[in-house]
Amino acid sequence: MILTLSCPDRTGIVARVSALLFERGANILDAQQFDDQETGRFFMRVVFAPGEGAVEDLRAAIGELAESLAMDWTLRDPNDRRRVMILASQTDHCLSDLIWRWRQGELPMDITAVVSNHPESTYPHTDLKGIAFRHLPVTPETKAQQEAQLWKLIQDTRTDLVILARYMQVLSDDLSAKLAGRCINIHHSFLPGFKGAKPYHQAHARGVKLIGATAHFVTADLDEGPIIEQDVERISHRDAPRDLVRKGRDIERRVLARAVRWTLEDRVLLNGRKTVVFTD
Amino acid sequence: MILTLSCPDRTGIVARVSALLFERGANILDAQQFDDQETGRFFMRVVFAPGEGAVEDLRAAIGELAESLAMDWTLRDPNDRRRVMILASQTDHCLSDLIWRWRQGELPMDITAVVSNHPESTYPHTDLKGIAFRHLPVTPETKAQQEAQLWKLIQDTRTDLVILARYMQVLSDDLSAKLAGRCINIHHSFLPGFKGAKPYHQAHARGVKLIGATAHFVTADLDEGPIIEQDVERISHRDAPRDLVRKGRDIERRVLARAVRWTLEDRVLLNGRKTVVFTD
Amino acid sequence: MILTLSCPDRTGIVARVSALLFERGANILDAQQFDDQETGRFFMRVVFAPGEGAVEDLRAAIGELAESLAMDWTLRDPNDRRRVMILASQTDHCLSDLIWRWRQGELPMDITAVVSNHPESTYPHTDLKGIAFRHLPVTPETKAQQEAQLWKLIQDTRTDLVILARYMQVLSDDLSAKLAGRCINIHHSFLPGFKGAKPYHQAHARGVKLIGATAHFVTADLDEGPIIEQDVERISHRDAPRDLVRKGRDIERRVLARAVRWTLEDRVLLNGRKTVVFTD
Amino acid sequence: MILTLSCPDRTGIVARVSALLFERGANILDAQQFDDQETGRFFMRVVFAPGEGAVEDLRAAIGELAESLAMDWTLRDPNDRRRVMILASQTDHCLSDLIWRWRQGELPMDITAVVSNHPESTYPHTDLKGIAFRHLPVTPETKAQQEAQLWKLIQDTRTDLVILARYMQVLSDDLSAKLAGRCINIHHSFLPGFKGAKPYHQAHARGVKLIGATAHFVTADLDEGPIIEQDVERISHRDAPRDLVRKGRDIERRVLARAVRWTLEDRVLLNGRKTVVFTD
Repeated sequence: MILTLSCPDRTGIVARVSALLFERGANILDAQQFDDQETGRFFMRVVFAPGEGAVEDLRAAIGELAESLAMDWTLRDPNDRRRVMILASQTDHCLSDLIWRWRQGELPMDITAVVSNHPESTYPHTDLKGIAFRHLPVTPETKAQQEAQLWKLIQDTRTDLVILARYMQVLSDDLSAKLAGRCINIHHSFLPGFKGAKPYHQAHARGVKLIGATAHFVTADLDEGPIIEQDVERISHRDAPRDLVRKGRDIERRVLARAVRWTLEDRVLLNGRKTVVFTD
Repeated sequence: MILTLSCPDRTGIVARVSALLFERGANILDAQQFDDQETGRFFMRVVFAPGEGAVEDLRAAIGELAESLAMDWTLRDPNDRRRVMILASQTDHCLSDLIWRWRQGELPMDITAVVSNHPESTYPHTDLKGIAFRHLPVTPETKAQQEAQLWKLIQDTRTDLVILARYMQVLSDDLSAKLAGRCINIHHSFLPGFKGAKPYHQAHARGVKLIGATAHFVTADLDEGPIIEQDVERISHRDAPRDLVRKGRDIERRVLARAVRWTLEDRVLLNGRKTVVFTD
Repeated sequence: MILTLSCPDRTGIVARVSALLFERGANILDAQQFDDQETGRFFMRVVFAPGEGAVEDLRAAIGELAESLAMDWTLRDPNDRRRVMILASQTDHCLSDLIWRWRQGELPMDITAVVSNHPESTYPHTDLKGIAFRHLPVTPETKAQQEAQLWKLIQDTRTDLVILARYMQVLSDDLSAKLAGRCINIHHSFLPGFKGAKPYHQAHARGVKLIGATAHFVTADLDEGPIIEQDVERISHRDAPRDLVRKGRDIERRVLARAVRWTLEDRVLLNGRKTVVFTD
Repeated sequence: MILTLSCPDRTGIVARVSALLFERGANILDAQQFDDQETGRFFMRVVFAPGEGAVEDLRAAIGELAESLAMDWTLRDPNDRRRVMILASQTDHCLSDLIWRWRQGELPMDITAVVSNHPESTYPHTDLKGIAFRHLPVTPETKAQQEAQLWKLIQDTRTDLVILARYMQVLSDDLSAKLAGRCINIHHSFLPGFKGAKPYHQAHARGVKLIGATAHFVTADLDEGPIIEQDVERISHRDAPRDLVRKGRDIERRVLARAVRWTLEDRVLLNGRKTVVFTD
């Protein structure tokens, strides 16, 4: 089982949580804590082998403790895989990579659907066998309806997490709000540098010596959501924008994959407009 | 206060440790655990603000618990700085960098002495003001006597940690054993590649595309001690051995500095011939 | 057109090569030289837009110059794509990635065949549509025959370059010699560390803090061929061997892809048991 | 000798330059070219062993060719070391590191002066022995006079290159213009992210996962000058602003040192608001 929690800091949190687990026969396998001295908020992730009692009793006991400590918390059996929807557009390198990793067993999730504003034939080389595909075309005029369809699909499929795998549509403020904390985007620059459109062309024009990618939670404020993971790669004056796009595909794929895996493993906790990431 | 411990894994360790701290009014600021499922050994580092009671009572209570759980443990007030001796030879880039960082406040330690098999005039540009310097020359014939002097100095100065900052003498098995777990060496290759002498020349001859450095605890088995930290840098066919030496100086400095800082902050725990490093 | 050459160093090589190109109306777009002062050998790669004359005349003129300077040289129109055979075994992450990149247009090559000692059904998620697949099973007893089949296939398909994409069979000395300088292997360690079998398990046992992968030309001397490219990734005590395997897949894929692309673009020149790589 | 040049691209530049060198008995040791297809500008750096003739004749011949091809060019004997002035303020990690590397022989330059708006006693641990030190205090009211003194000193000492080694004063537009292309600044962020003051605090507030530093030529447009080199390091939620400052010192030192060394070796050519860097 994986328990995550955050709450106002005070003495005794670790003691009370670990005592609660111990009394129920649980064995802690891995644990990380973080006390944000700036905000006075405490964060914790505990992986444990449960004891013999019913999980529901444990959940109730944690709930009681949580209330008394004003905790935000989650408790999840790693075997209860998250339900994930992937959104894509014209380019499919992130989509393709996520599906490949999922088939390799790197990403413990169930895919509820792949959704695109382009038809399935856009992805002839991505192995979508056995995955529900939905084509939801969108124009400036139909954006509201398309988002309504999308939201309905998210609800109907009981999707926990939405991944924008280079989905080239900006979500409305309304949908962003509905998906707060459970929608991950990959932006193809090292934020906060090169916000907005065509970041590789911006990077080329500025003459930077490294390019990067950023995985972040989606918020109504474009390219300003809490950052989960970033990485960079070295470039040189020889690299034309098309070379940056090629190198960028590699960075985007690995940054998004890490952010998704960490989220699926309950390693990512929100801390205001930032994240706490208990990496492995 | 910083508590580190390792012991055979069993249920309730975290609970018992955190309860003990909580009962004495301590507040846990940072904690990391690791359960090595291969060896069945549990590792923990806890940083806490102590409560009002005497530290000695706390120490006694931990000692009692430690005995019942067969723990190796340390408890240290970060204000009780470690006493560190630095050994150097002809080149002084690691020595110079350690002293610079210490003066910047990056390395919380007291320097008991800088010891070299070369005279102090070897280091005209290293600021040794206010630091005890000892010249202990060595020849194959006098090696045993020199090590005896060195060992006496370590004892007389109550040195906790010895750093071989490119000290070009191999310690005897006997002295290595005496310093087990408290002597750090920097080897100028990415171990286990290029053991032994002149690793940059070996790397050049082999045509590798990255060179590296390794900070490790010293053991009688040369270049086989538990690794604390490693890093690498990219090279190309244009790099002659002298370029590797230059690039290597940068890698060695930062790898050794990280290993020393982590050790000073009680982040490095021995796990057989490996280490557990609770990085920041 | 791309011209590569290497020869004993002497004055006037660049002048004579560039004059030859200029006189025939060629425009140099990119050029890199390297003078190995250790071996006295000169290396050059020139990319140029040819003038109006016939390429065969240019080739003849270069041939004449090459003879007088004792050059090894190649001249290739980038539109004449190299003919490449990919060999794989049980795991398909490298195979899958190469094919994906090839379909993206990252790797300018024609695939003559994918060959495996396992049947095509081993790779249900790799898009082999339109690619010739050959199953060449092998046992210790049939190794010689299987290699004979393989060699015949290489000749019949006029294959220029063979890629061992985690092909888990050691080539015989004889076949290695036949493929000298045109067979690339990906080894899943940072050579010369962890040669031989199960390098990730070796790395875990040794407790290194970085793992890596190495792309090299195959020679009869196992894991000792000229290195083309290497890269590493950080690991921690938390990583079990299966985590190293997972992280390693990412490193292997990008290291092999870079080595293959550079080779296809005539950027890799042999320099004894080392390589000169004129990177972009 | 090192020749650098840039000019509008046309056929025959390499041929004419290399023929000119060959006819005078020079031997090319290393050469790199770059043809910027976007701007139609050609860049070249050639290292050669001169023949027997007088250097001044060679210089005249190059001058003639340069005129006919509208070249910007430099020709320099590596033994004629550049004259460099270093400006510093309160923190001295970059100053200290540059001087250390210079004493190690890593930076082929003569230091004309170390100039600071703070007194020499600010740097008790930096070895300024044998280096001219000038204290030029500055207030908002005296800024114009101080810059006049600085400019006079630059002229009097025949300084070729000015390094702002964490000099915390913004140069006026006028002085920036006078020093165009020969004044290098180190900015403590990964530009274009976090321009302006206190970038590490900005980075902490934004929650980025990597921090960086940027060495660039100074222009009137603050933090917008041509970038020479950048690098980054990984951080986590555990890093407070003071930790970013500490980690940043390491990045700043190595980024600035690389940019300075490359400039001293004539590897950095201006290309509009960008740079061409022929790295080693």
